[in-house]
Amino acid sequence: MLVLIYSLMKKEISNWLDELKKIVGEKSFFTRQEQMLDYSHDEFPGTEIAQLPLAVVKPVNTRQVSDILKWANKSKIPVTPRGGGTGLCGGCIPAPGGIVLSLEEMNRILEIDRQNRMAVVEAGVRLRDFYEAVEKENLFFPPHPGDESAAIGGVIATNAGGARAVKYGVVRNFVKGIEVVLPDGEIVQLGGKLLKNSSGYSLLHLMTGSEGTLGIVTKAILNLLPPPQAQLTLIAPFENLENAVGVVPALGKAGILPMAVEFIEVETIKVAEDFLNKKWPCREGRAHLMIILDGSGEDEVLAAAGRIDALCREFGARQVFVADTPKKQKEVLEIRSKIYETIKKYVVEILDIVLPPAEIPAHVERVRQLSREYGMWLPTFGHAADGNVHTLPLRAHYIDGRWQEIPDSEWKAIYPRVRQALHDDAASRGGLVSGEHGIGLLKKEYLEDAVGRNVVDKMRLIKKAFDPNHILNPGKIF
Amino acid sequence: MLVLIYSLMKKEISNWLDELKKIVGEKSFFTRQEQMLDYSHDEFPGTEIAQLPLAVVKPVNTRQVSDILKWANKSKIPVTPRGGGTGLCGGCIPAPGGIVLSLEEMNRILEIDRQNRMAVVEAGVRLRDFYEAVEKENLFFPPHPGDESAAIGGVIATNAGGARAVKYGVVRNFVKGIEVVLPDGEIVQLGGKLLKNSSGYSLLHLMTGSEGTLGIVTKAILNLLPPPQAQLTLIAPFENLENAVGVVPALGKAGILPMAVEFIEVETIKVAEDFLNKKWPCREGRAHLMIILDGSGEDEVLAAAGRIDALCREFGARQVFVADTPKKQKEVLEIRSKIYETIKKYVVEILDIVLPPAEIPAHVERVRQLSREYGMWLPTFGHAADGNVHTLPLRAHYIDGRWQEIPDSEWKAIYPRVRQALHDDAASRGGLVSGEHGIGLLKKEYLEDAVGRNVVDKMRLIKKAFDPNHILNPGKIF
Repeated sequence: MLVLIYSLMKKEISNWLDELKKIVGEKSFFTRQEQMLDYSHDEFPGTEIAQLPLAVVKPVNTRQVSDILKWANKSKIPVTPRGGGTGLCGGCIPAPGGIVLSLEEMNRILEIDRQNRMAVVEAGVRLRDFYEAVEKENLFFPPHPGDESAAIGGVIATNAGGARAVKYGVVRNFVKGIEVVLPDGEIVQLGGKLLKNSSGYSLLHLMTGSEGTLGIVTKAILNLLPPPQAQLTLIAPFENLENAVGVVPALGKAGILPMAVEFIEVETIKVAEDFLNKKWPCREGRAHLMIILDGSGEDEVLAAAGRIDALCREFGARQVFVADTPKKQKEVLEIRSKIYETIKKYVVEILDIVLPPAEIPAHVERVRQLSREYGMWLPTFGHAADGNVHTLPLRAHYIDGRWQEIPDSEWKAIYPRVRQALHDDAASRGGLVSGEHGIGLLKKEYLEDAVGRNVVDKMRLIKKAFDPNHILNPGKIF
Repeated sequence: MLVLIYSLMKKEISNWLDELKKIVGEKSFFTRQEQMLDYSHDEFPGTEIAQLPLAVVKPVNTRQVSDILKWANKSKIPVTPRGGGTGLCGGCIPAPGGIVLSLEEMNRILEIDRQNRMAVVEAGVRLRDFYEAVEKENLFFPPHPGDESAAIGGVIATNAGGARAVKYGVVRNFVKGIEVVLPDGEIVQLGGKLLKNSSGYSLLHLMTGSEGTLGIVTKAILNLLPPPQAQLTLIAPFENLENAVGVVPALGKAGILPMAVEFIEVETIKVAEDFLNKKWPCREGRAHLMIILDGSGEDEVLAAAGRIDALCREFGARQVFVADTPKKQKEVLEIRSKIYETIKKYVVEILDIVLPPAEIPAHVERVRQLSREYGMWLPTFGHAADGNVHTLPLRAHYIDGRWQEIPDSEWKAIYPRVRQALHDDAASRGGLVSGEHGIGLLKKEYLEDAVGRNVVDKMRLIKKAFDPNHILNPGKIF
C-alpha cells in the first residue's frame, strides 16, 4: 500500500515537474544530480545541512519567476530562491522535496542613471560586476560584504553589511526600490528612484533581510554616491584588544568617521599569511586595527590619518602602518577578506554576533575564557566600529604551521555549550544573533532567545499573511 | 428605542472611561472640551478634519501605555497615539469615538551613550530638547524635519526626512532600536544599540513609518554621529528652476555631497521676507538654491564651496552668496523653515510628492502650467537633491504685499482637479505621494494609485495580523 502511494506521489511530482519544465524551457531546467550538487549548499563548511532539490530552474525574466511561483503555490512545492550561493548560514539550501529557483541568468545591469545616481539591476547581478560597472561611471556603491561573488538579490535578502558599513551603513540604506514576486505570483514594485518615502508601510524594508521567505526580489534600484577622492588604509598593532577597540569611541569623539574599522587578533593573521603567502604589514602586539579612511581629498585623509596615528599611540600602539598605494591597500584587504578561506576547512560555524560596539572587549574576553575552558580555538575578528563580531570555532589547532585536528567525538561534545555560552553572553550585553549574515537554517534555534518569542510570533503572522501555503523558502529564519 | 440604545451605549462608554481613568490617574485623564481642543487637530490648516476624542490620556510610563491598550482592545475603543502634534496630513487626529494617547509626559532623555554613540529617549521627547542634549555631549543627530516641536515618537511614526537627509538619510537610518507596545498591550523590544541587524524580519523598519497603526513607540535608541567641524550655507540665484536643479547631478559628478540642497522660487521668498521682516541674501533670478555644506574642517568646506560656486556659475548663477557665520546661517534657515508659517492661513493642502530628483524641473513646470490653467497660486519649494517637492496650493493671491482671497466656491471647485493632476504627474515620473509627511487621513485616496492596490492589500493584511480589533489609529494610511 505504502509503495503504491509512493509511486502515485512520484508520478504526481513527475507531472508537476513537467509543467515546471514548460515554464522555463528545457535549457533552464535541471534534475540530474551532478547538475544540482552545487545548488545543495552555500558557503557554510558543514556538509550535514546540504540538501538536493527536486529540480533547479533558472528563469530568465520576471514573468517566468511569477509563473514558477504560481505553479508552486498550486502544487504546494517549496521554492528556495538562490543568488550567488555565498551565504554562511544555510539560507539558500533547498527545502526537502522542493526546487531551487536560481536567479543567476537574470544578471543584467539595466541602467546606471547618473542624473539620479541610481542603478537598476536584475537580482542575479554579481557584486563584482556591479562594482566594475559603477566605477566605470565614476560612481560608488559603498556596501562591501566580503564575497564579491554574492548576487544583489542575495545581499538584499540578508541585508548584508560588510566592513564599509561604519560610515555608509548596510545594504538596506542603499536599496531604494525593488521588484518582487510574491508567493502567489503577483509582481509588485516597491519604492523607486526615490531617496525618501513615507507612503504607507515600508514593504521594501520588510522584504529587505527577509531571506527570500516573503517574496523573490527580481530587480533592485540602488542608490549610488559620488566616489571618495582619496583613500588610505592604516594598520595599528596593540598589546590587547581592549586597547585596540578603545580607539573606536575616541575616533568618534575626535569627529573622525572612517569607512571601516576592523579588528583582528594576530594569531589569526599568522594563519592567513602562511596560507596566502602574503605579508601583513606588521606582527607586533596581539590585536590589530585596520582602519580605512576616505574623503574628498588627499589633504583631508592625511590630516585624519595623522590624528588617528596620535590616538592609536595614546592607546598604546607603538607604530601605525600606512597602506597608501592602491596596491598595498588591496593586499592588506585581501588578507583580511580571505581569513575565512584560509581556515574554512576546519570551521565549525561562522558566528555573526552583533553588540553595542563598546561591548566588544568584554565579549571577546568571554570568547577567550571559553577557548581556554574548552580547549577549542575560537579565532575572532570583525567590524569593531559596528560591533559585529565573527567568532569562527575551529575543530583543529594550528601549531607550528600545522593543523592538528580534534576528534569529532570531542569537539561535537563541547561545541553546543560553547555556542550557547557565546550567544548568552551576547544577549546579556544587548546583542543579537546576526549582524549581517541572516538567520537561515543555522541560527534558527537562537532567534527566539535573542529577539523574544512574541516578536518571532509576529514574524510568523507576517509570513502567513504573505505566504499562506508556506511555499517560499520554508524552514528558514523560524 | 434608539434613544434607549444610545443612553445604554453612553452608560457603557462612561463605565469604560472610568476604567481608563483608573489606569492613568485623575491628573492624566481629560474629557472637558477645552482641555481636548488642542488634541483634535494637527498642523494641517483645514479645520474640517478636526475631531474631538472621548478622552485624552497622558501616560507616564510604558506599563500605563500597555494597560491602556489592553483596555482599548477589550472595549474596542480606538486609540490614536500623539507626539508633538506637528504632523501635516491628519495622522494624529483621533478616530470618531476614540481616545487620544498623548506621549507628552514621557519626555525623558534616558541616556546619551558616548561610547556607543547612541541616545536612549522616551517617545515624547521634543526634537528641540533632543538636539540640545546631543550637542552638549558634542555629538550630532543629523535628521532635521522642519518643526523642532515634533516628538521623537512622531518622527519615527512618519519616518520624517527634512533638509539634511541628502547626505545623512532620513530618520529611519538613525533608529536602531525601539520599545513598542503592540495593540494587545504586549511590550516588545526591537533592535538595540546595534549598528547592524539581520536577525529575522525587521519589525523595527516595519514599525518605522507605520503612523501609529501597528504599535505605539514608547522608547527609541537613536544613532548619533560625530559633529561636523565646519559648516557653510550658500545661496545661488538662477534664471529658472531647470538651471537651479541642474546643479544637483553636477554636484554628484564633482564628488560633492552637501548636507542639504533646497530649492525655492523667488516669489515665495518675498512673502516670507515681508511676513518675517527679515532679508534673504538676494532677490535676483527666479529660483534659488540653498546649499548647506559640512565637513571635517574649514579648508575642506571652503574648497567645496569654491567648486560649487564655479558649478553654479556654469548653470547661469551670476553670483553665489555665502552665509559663513552661524548667525547668518540661522537667519537664512529661519526664512526657509518658516515659509509654511507665513502662508499657512491660506494653504489648502501641503503636498509631499517625492520624485526621482532629475524629474523635479519637469514636475514643477507642470505645477506652473496648472497654476496658469486654474488661476491658483501653487508655491513650490523643497528638497532638490532628495526629489521631495512641497507644493502648497493657496486659496488666495499675494498681490502688491496684500492677500486677496479666492471665494470658497471657486477654489473648492477646481482644487480636486489640481491635486489629482499633480499626483498623476508624479506617478507618471516614478514618484510617490509622500516623501516625509506620511499618508495620515489626507493622502489616503492617493495611496492605491501610487503604490498599487495589491501593495495596499498586503499592508492591510499586516495591519490585521498586528491589530485584529482595529483599535490602533484606525482610518489612517488606508
